[in-house]
Parts: sequence; C-alpha cells; structure tokens
Amino acid sequence: MKAEIITIGDEILIGQIIDTNSAYISKELNKIGVSVHQITSIQDEREHILQSLKEAAERVDVVIITGGLGPTKDDITKKCLCEFFNDKLVRNQKVLKHVEDLFAKYIDTPISDLNRDQALLPSKATALHNEYGTAPGMWFEENNKVFVSMPGVPYEMRGLMEREIIPRLIKNYSRPVILHKTVITYGLGESAIAEKIESWEDDLPKNIKLAYLPNLGRVRLRLTARGDNEEQLIDAVDKEIMKLHEIIGDIIYGYEGDDPVELVISKLLVEKNWTLSTAESCTGGRLASKFTKAPGSSASFKGSVVCYSSESKIELLGVSKELIEKHSVVSAEVAKAMALGAKEKFHTDFAISTTGNAGPTKGDSDAELGTVFIGIATPDGVNTHQFNFGNHREKVVGKSLNKAMELLQESVIKLRDDN
Amino acid sequence: MKAEIITIGDEILIGQIIDTNSAYISKELNKIGVSVHQITSIQDEREHILQSLKEAAERVDVVIITGGLGPTKDDITKKCLCEFFNDKLVRNQKVLKHVEDLFAKYIDTPISDLNRDQALLPSKATALHNEYGTAPGMWFEENNKVFVSMPGVPYEMRGLMEREIIPRLIKNYSRPVILHKTVITYGLGESAIAEKIESWEDDLPKNIKLAYLPNLGRVRLRLTARGDNEEQLIDAVDKEIMKLHEIIGDIIYGYEGDDPVELVISKLLVEKNWTLSTAESCTGGRLASKFTKAPGSSASFKGSVVCYSSESKIELLGVSKELIEKHSVVSAEVAKAMALGAKEKFHTDFAISTTGNAGPTKGDSDAELGTVFIGIATPDGVNTHQFNFGNHREKVVGKSLNKAMELLQESVIKLRDDN
Repeated sequence: MKAEIITIGDEILIGQIIDTNSAYISKELNKIGVSVHQITSIQDEREHILQSLKEAAERVDVVIITGGLGPTKDDITKKCLCEFFNDKLVRNQKVLKHVEDLFAKYIDTPISDLNRDQALLPSKATALHNEYGTAPGMWFEENNKVFVSMPGVPYEMRGLMEREIIPRLIKNYSRPVILHKTVITYGLGESAIAEKIESWEDDLPKNIKLAYLPNLGRVRLRLTARGDNEEQLIDAVDKEIMKLHEIIGDIIYGYEGDDPVELVISKLLVEKNWTLSTAESCTGGRLASKFTKAPGSSASFKGSVVCYSSESKIELLGVSKELIEKHSVVSAEVAKAMALGAKEKFHTDFAISTTGNAGPTKGDSDAELGTVFIGIATPDGVNTHQFNFGNHREKVVGKSLNKAMELLQESVIKLRDDN
Repeated sequence: MKAEIITIGDEILIGQIIDTNSAYISKELNKIGVSVHQITSIQDEREHILQSLKEAAERVDVVIITGGLGPTKDDITKKCLCEFFNDKLVRNQKVLKHVEDLFAKYIDTPISDLNRDQALLPSKATALHNEYGTAPGMWFEENNKVFVSMPGVPYEMRGLMEREIIPRLIKNYSRPVILHKTVITYGLGESAIAEKIESWEDDLPKNIKLAYLPNLGRVRLRLTARGDNEEQLIDAVDKEIMKLHEIIGDIIYGYEGDDPVELVISKLLVEKNWTLSTAESCTGGRLASKFTKAPGSSASFKGSVVCYSSESKIELLGVSKELIEKHSVVSAEVAKAMALGAKEKFHTDFAISTTGNAGPTKGDSDAELGTVFIGIATPDGVNTHQFNFGNHREKVVGKSLNKAMELLQESVIKLRDDN
C-alpha cells in the first residue's frame, strides 16, 4: 500500500514556511505499514492541483492532501477537489454547528458567512471532525483509491490524522508490516563504519535495507524491513543487530525509538524520582526548550539559567570571578562550576552545563572557535568534557546539544545500574 | 524562469527528518526572480530518481537536487546523475585535495578509499567547492536546462547556495523580478480581515497576488508582485499597502522582512545600547533560544532564567513566596515579579516574563488551561498582560512566544520614539 502526500500552498514554495506536516504524516503512515512513495509540494494554482491529483492517483493507493482549506479567496483546494471528483458543494449541518461553537467559545470577532461556508463540503466527501479548527477533514474514495484532505495548521492536521485518518486506514485496508530500527552510534564517521561493516551489509537479507544517517557527531544506522509477519521481521532485524554488535558494539550508543532522546532521559529520571536542571551558555536555552517540550516535563525538569555574560555566571550560578579570570570563561573549571551551581540553585540531582565558543567571533574568551566544554553534575560528583565541534556556529551549537544529551543519558543510566 | 527542487532520501519519506532545505532554497531562488514550481521528495531508488529528473526537466528550467551524496552504498544520487547524463566518473584532483585537508584538520579517523571517492565526479559536471564537507556540489547544463546537485547537510547546502549557485544563476541568466511584501496584523481572524478588505482585494492589479497566512494569533497578508521593472513593482505594491492602511491600519503591526522578529528586536536594542533578559515558565527557554540564535546576540541578550518550579521562581528570581501563595503562580502579580526579577538579576534594561498553564494538566496552579500572563519590564516600569491561548499545548506555547515578542517590540519602539 503506497501513499503520496501533496502539500498545497504558495508559502511552502516561496520558502515562507517549512513543511513539517509531511514528516509527521510519513511517520504515522509508516507505523501502520503504508509506504510514502513521494511528497509533492505545489502552489495554490488550479491546473497544477488538478494535474498533481491525477498523477498521484496513477502512482499510489492513498493520496493525502494538506493545505488550502482556509476561508479566504486564495485557498482553492476544496473547489479543486469538487472539480476533480465532478462533484458539488453541500452544507454539512454538523460541521456548521461546530464552527459556530468554536466562534462562540474562543473567538472575539463575530462569525461571518465566510466562516459558515467552511461547512460547505463536496457531496461525495465524508466529513472528518476537526476539533481545533473550522475546516473539517474530507475523505473520498474513488476507483479503489483513497483521497484525504486536511487543513495545513499542524496541530489541527495531527488531531485529524490521529483520531480519524489512521483509524480508518487500519480498519478498512490490509497492510504489510514496515519495521524500522535505528541504531545510534558515535565516535566514527559514516565511511569508517561502512568499511567495518561492509561484509555484514552485503549479506543482509533482501527484505532488509540499510541507511546511514550522519548528523552532527552521530551516525545513525537505520534498518528497514518489509514483510507480512511482524514477529518474523522483528526476529530477523534483531538477529542482524546482534551481528552488528559483534562488529561495532563499542560505538553503539542506543536505539532510536519513537521518543526523542530528551523524552527517554525524562522517563529515566521520573522512574527514579530524579530531577534535572541546566546551565547554558553556548546552547542558549536549547537544552531547556527540549526538556520542557513534553507535557508533564515539570516532574523531572526544574529549570535552567541561560547565562550569556560572565556576570550572570557569577551572580546567578555562583561561579567565582577569580575562577573565570584564571581559567577563562570557556574552560573545564567554569563548566564544572556552572553545573554545580545549577544543581545547587535548582536543588536537582543532575545538572548539565555548556560553555563554548560557537563563533563566528571569539566573544568573551580566547578559546579557539568551536571549543566547547560540557559539565555533567550527578549525585556522585561532576565531570567535564572538552570538544572541538568545528567551524560553523550551527554545527557547534547542534553538536553541543547532542553531545550534552548523550553524556547525560550515559550518566543517568550508569547511576541507575550502579544502584 | 522556473525551478523544481528534488530532495532525495528515504529519511524524508519515512518522516525521520524534516526537510528544512527546500524552504531555504525556495527563499533564495525567489529573491533572484526564480519561481519554485514544485518541490518533490523521493526515495534513494534508481528508477524513481531517473523518472523524477526527466519529469522535472519537462516542467522547469532549473532542477535543484539535494541529498544522496554520502560516501556509503545507500547514497546513489551521483550514480544516477551519471546514468541520466550518459556520463562516466572521473577523479577531480582539487576536490581530492580538499577531502584530504578536511580529514587532516578535523577528523580523527584515518581517511579511506570511500572518502577519497568523494572526488569522483561525472565528467560533464562542474565541481562546486563545499567548504564544510567532503561532497562537492555539481553543476550540469544540458539542452538549455540547468541541473544542480548538492549534499543534504543543511549548512553545507547553504554554503554552496550562497557562494556558488546563486552567483552563477545571477551571472548567466536574465530573470524577472519577484517581489514579496508581507504585512503582519493581529487582533482579527483571517475571515474578518477578508470581509473588510474584499473590494480592495478584488481591485488588485493582475500582477499582484494576495495570500492570507494565519499563524498562532497573527494573520500575515502577503502581496506577491511579478514583472520586469523592480522600481515599478515596488511602487505598485507600496501603493496597495497604503490603501490597505486606510482600511485596516489599526491592526497592522509591521512588515515581515528577511529578519525574524527576534533579530529585528536585537537590532533595535543594539542601536540604543539596550539589553534584555527573560524569565520563562511556560515558554521553557524558547525565548532565550530565539534570542541566542544569531551570531553576536550576546551584545544585547544577557540571559534567561527558565523556572519550571515555584521554588526556582522564588530562589533565582526573588519572587516572594507570599506573593505566589496569595495570587497563585499563574497570575499577573507573579509575571510582574518575574520580569522585575530578571531585569535586576541580569542588570538589563528590558525583561520579558511568561507564566501560564499550557496543559494538558493543570500543574502548579488552578488557572484555566490556556491562561498565560506575560510581563514586560522596561526602564520606565513594568506591564503585564493576560491571555487565553486555547486548548492545545503547542498552540499555547507558540502563541505565548509570538505575543511576548510583539509586546516587547512595541515597548522597545515606544521607548525609542519617546526619547
């Protein structure tokens, strides 16, 4: 079962917004055995929309369309779907009621005819309830193909996928199993890994595919297996990963699940009733942003001091002025004092600190561009680690973030296993 | 002059990564008058790559390809380009030297044949220097069409676009002018705006197109004009915007330039030698992350306290315990005390605070889900503002972030204009 995602909207093609919806949709479809064959982004332009619908229907079984469902004139997806299916618009009373309720509850301005017209749907469409917005999803079936249209607002789209579209696909269609397992490694580049695992890679079963995903200091190895029997696929993939461990076990750091690393760490912390804080210089609040993203994160994450000046390191984290003067603000000693400072101020079990020179200019210290120190304070003490993360600001900050997460995860797991 | 972007890589189609490259490329092409007609994301699969190259060449003048240039077996873009152009691989000595230099300077593991093979290029390709990585860009011309291939690593791709591809397109091709001007409004929904400006919209000149872009509490109105004479286009767009001011001037908040709002604010601050800090509860470090993103941001941004517990609000920001007990942690009084606390602790001229209930659970306070207080401390005093940002965590945090930026920008501009 193959799908194509069509995103409609000039804002994508002029680069005004980044298309995050397609990644989410792809991931959810993959989980239930639907492969995404192609993602196509096109303008709010009638001929182009009609042509793309036609081409997609030739390539795949399921066409998922996002965008172009707003109440204003520039949004023409609904009209084009009507034309494509040779259909006409009719008013859906249930949708109308929902639109009126949303206006009554959350919106200050009075409801207008344009808003009410959100309840006009092609007669062949099944309306899908959109809890967070006024544009309903639409589901069409024609010639054994499924077409689904959703608004482009990310949380509205996700609500529709989760509650309406995925359950319908699961219920109505038999699908193969697609299994991804991703091994996270660090310490070696992709070509060095490729050489070590060459004969293993050549001997992989035909239904298992390997991909290398290098990213800011990590290389992830993704195994994708396709088949009909989930248990057999899991066994086959696990067998290959065991072989992989025999070859490069020393650089395998973990597996990528559905959870991002910060959530994995949060869960580890909550399990032990441990808490965390951060003291961020070169990561500038990105560690805190990651840890506070998940609902319920306040159970383990207590806070962060982002200190972009030496003074704030001194005053808010209690780093001593003499220490900074003696060792410079980018130093193991300052990273250590920052981590201990955060741990103390926030009364947490763990604390991470980052201080470095991300460039492009040298800033407050003489440290070479790319130099970063990371400190990890644990109930057992504090460690610091020095790195050079290269010659590009984004690379330096990104690698600092990844490395800090890695080091923290190691420390948390170590302490858990030691106890 | 029309372009298509083809991104190659299974990781996009299984949702393992978000394609941020296409937005960047689209924006840069638009700036020089090249319209992006379509963005197509496909797998690392020979037939699909060859087919997509063929179809794109039928649709557009310039085909920009990213991804699939790594040294490992799963990356097959170079091979496919060779086949598509009926070409063969030859070793490029200059590229080889660069690969060897990068290994000598930044990479611990010894260089291998796989790495050296990054210097094998199709003979018809012009190699484009990739300063940050081992895979060079490639430029092909055939039958009056241009094909460009770049690695998918974002900062490598951006370096190539900026230094190699954009200058070549400017030099070798005459292009029309595409002008975007985006008006930022807040306070009215898109349909309410649409009704107010209906006759203005209907009377727009044929070469000016309007789009509505609602996003977390703002509606942006984008005017796109196409033509040959830049001056005339600027005049025509400005004339329309003046008319727009007469109709909805009260809700127009500014214009979207190339700079994101945080950079606009940073520039305003630096101009006056003013400084900023933040005290973040419900935004969890996102304000700090935004302000620290730009190189040189430490000139105005001094730091943030992310306080995810009442204790840290008390201990790190000096909010009084009694105040929290009396008014609850989500209150105007606490927002005010947090902003003043940050302003004092970081010794800054301005400070923003956020405290709210982003859900899904109620957390430390009894405040209704979606309630957010934002405090803005300025050299003249402190203001607080109360909002309800709705029923979804991401919406609440996103709207808090946007609103805090808006309120701060207003305050900074007001103080500048008053002095």
